[in-house]
Amino acid sequence: MLLQIIYIIAISAEAMTGALAAGRRRMDMFGVIIIATVTALGGGSLRDMVLGHYPMGWVRHPAYLGYVITAALIATALARWMHHLRRTFLILDGLGLVAFTLIGCAVARNAGHPAAIIMVAGMLTGSFGGVLRDVLCNEVPLIFQRELYAVVSLLTGGAYVLLLEAGFPETTVTLGCLAGGFLIRLLAIRYRWEMPKFVYHEELH
Amino acid sequence: MLLQIIYIIAISAEAMTGALAAGRRRMDMFGVIIIATVTALGGGSLRDMVLGHYPMGWVRHPAYLGYVITAALIATALARWMHHLRRTFLILDGLGLVAFTLIGCAVARNAGHPAAIIMVAGMLTGSFGGVLRDVLCNEVPLIFQRELYAVVSLLTGGAYVLLLEAGFPETTVTLGCLAGGFLIRLLAIRYRWEMPKFVYHEELH
Amino acid sequence: MLLQIIYIIAISAEAMTGALAAGRRRMDMFGVIIIATVTALGGGSLRDMVLGHYPMGWVRHPAYLGYVITAALIATALARWMHHLRRTFLILDGLGLVAFTLIGCAVARNAGHPAAIIMVAGMLTGSFGGVLRDVLCNEVPLIFQRELYAVVSLLTGGAYVLLLEAGFPETTVTLGCLAGGFLIRLLAIRYRWEMPKFVYHEELH
Repeated sequence: MLLQIIYIIAISAEAMTGALAAGRRRMDMFGVIIIATVTALGGGSLRDMVLGHYPMGWVRHPAYLGYVITAALIATALARWMHHLRRTFLILDGLGLVAFTLIGCAVARNAGHPAAIIMVAGMLTGSFGGVLRDVLCNEVPLIFQRELYAVVSLLTGGAYVLLLEAGFPETTVTLGCLAGGFLIRLLAIRYRWEMPKFVYHEELH
Repeated sequence: MLLQIIYIIAISAEAMTGALAAGRRRMDMFGVIIIATVTALGGGSLRDMVLGHYPMGWVRHPAYLGYVITAALIATALARWMHHLRRTFLILDGLGLVAFTLIGCAVARNAGHPAAIIMVAGMLTGSFGGVLRDVLCNEVPLIFQRELYAVVSLLTGGAYVLLLEAGFPETTVTLGCLAGGFLIRLLAIRYRWEMPKFVYHEELH
Repeated sequence: MLLQIIYIIAISAEAMTGALAAGRRRMDMFGVIIIATVTALGGGSLRDMVLGHYPMGWVRHPAYLGYVITAALIATALARWMHHLRRTFLILDGLGLVAFTLIGCAVARNAGHPAAIIMVAGMLTGSFGGVLRDVLCNEVPLIFQRELYAVVSLLTGGAYVLLLEAGFPETTVTLGCLAGGFLIRLLAIRYRWEMPKFVYHEELH
């Protein structure tokens, strides 16, 4: 299945961004592998813990751990050339965001959850690997401050729910949402679409 | 039920404190909503993950997400006037702390857990939304350094367990603990009751 | 059982290191107790949440909470003398690391998980209490930057899986891995064995 192939590409790309983030914090190779794994698989794991959906994907398919660790090691080996690939990464990461989202939505839908929970499950899967990466690297999560990211996840999930509700077949909906969500993410990067910032100065204490 | 109404008020108040914390970190509107949601619903979610209690409250009642997001948006719209409401917030937050605690205690008790776990469940529900908020905002959690907060949660939970054990009816116990815990929290704010600090200077490494 | 006694010693030692870390952050006594509890019991709790293994150990045996809190209070009372015990702590912590690891491996094995998941479960149990402690204290986790620690966990888990696979009896394997893993940890401390660091400077954004 197409989504499966894209999923493998996506966790590999996410693992690489995690490995580079760890390198910026001067971690050792073990830290690199952990941050890469958390970035790639943490969103889906959090979704499964929230929904009580056991066993988790990578517990059932430990091969995923192998892909992620391999991708992290490749990223450290090629670190010198990585900044030339910046554009490639952003594209793979965008594809991964939308693929993760749709997988998360499908998991919640198959478990019989209502529309709002399907959208939340998609967003957790798509965006929270990066949140966990930033927490472990001791940073304010990037996705709370940058151009449209998790919002793409929510829009994709919303479209997925609506189109299925409208009676379209699942494969069509999945492919359509994959293309549409990916396009929005690319446009958001290209034109620096951002959510309005909320800045609050008053000291409460 | 009274506790239910107080619960809605409490998650709304907690969501507002989360939104303001996000604003202090210059997050975008999406970050604001996530931090608000985690602050309001994170404590109960953590309790459910620790106890293996599925489905979680907001997964069963997605309307809670709606209340929380609405409260967060109202807080950003009214941010300019928020510091005038400081006192109101502290009071609502104190009410929320005690209401969350009693709900958490009831969940653990209905699942048949022993007294110590009932108290821990109450404390996780009452206090750990704020801990997760502070971790996501990249701060040392406030409740580990400020006036009596989680301790109010533990005292409330302890009284709840003891009074039920002593044979009082559940409604009486719940209302009594709600009033008593709320009073202690108000006194702690008024007289700046604090736990003794533990300061350790020696370098271990 | 030997592992059980070592486990009690280990959670007490881990609780003490957590209490001292909290003291360095000037937390109050409540914060001290929470950080101590998370350090001692957080790794096993995370393992249980990841594997969907309920009820968790300390929920079934709330007495563990008592040991941990007592150890934390002793650490604060004796803080002045704690740096004289640095060597003792490192040794107890090393013993705890290996004992936690083997307990985590046994839990995953009894639940029927494959080799890779048994090793991950051992590593989560052995090393992630310290990761959670560092996240709550707002620091980059130590184990991602210091001498061999989690790697000892992985090696111990790997040996455990291989030796059981080879047909050795469980008690022999457990004791052998306990001794072997502990020895490697002591050597890693003595000779400052470290994983290679990965340092990445290029700005991606």
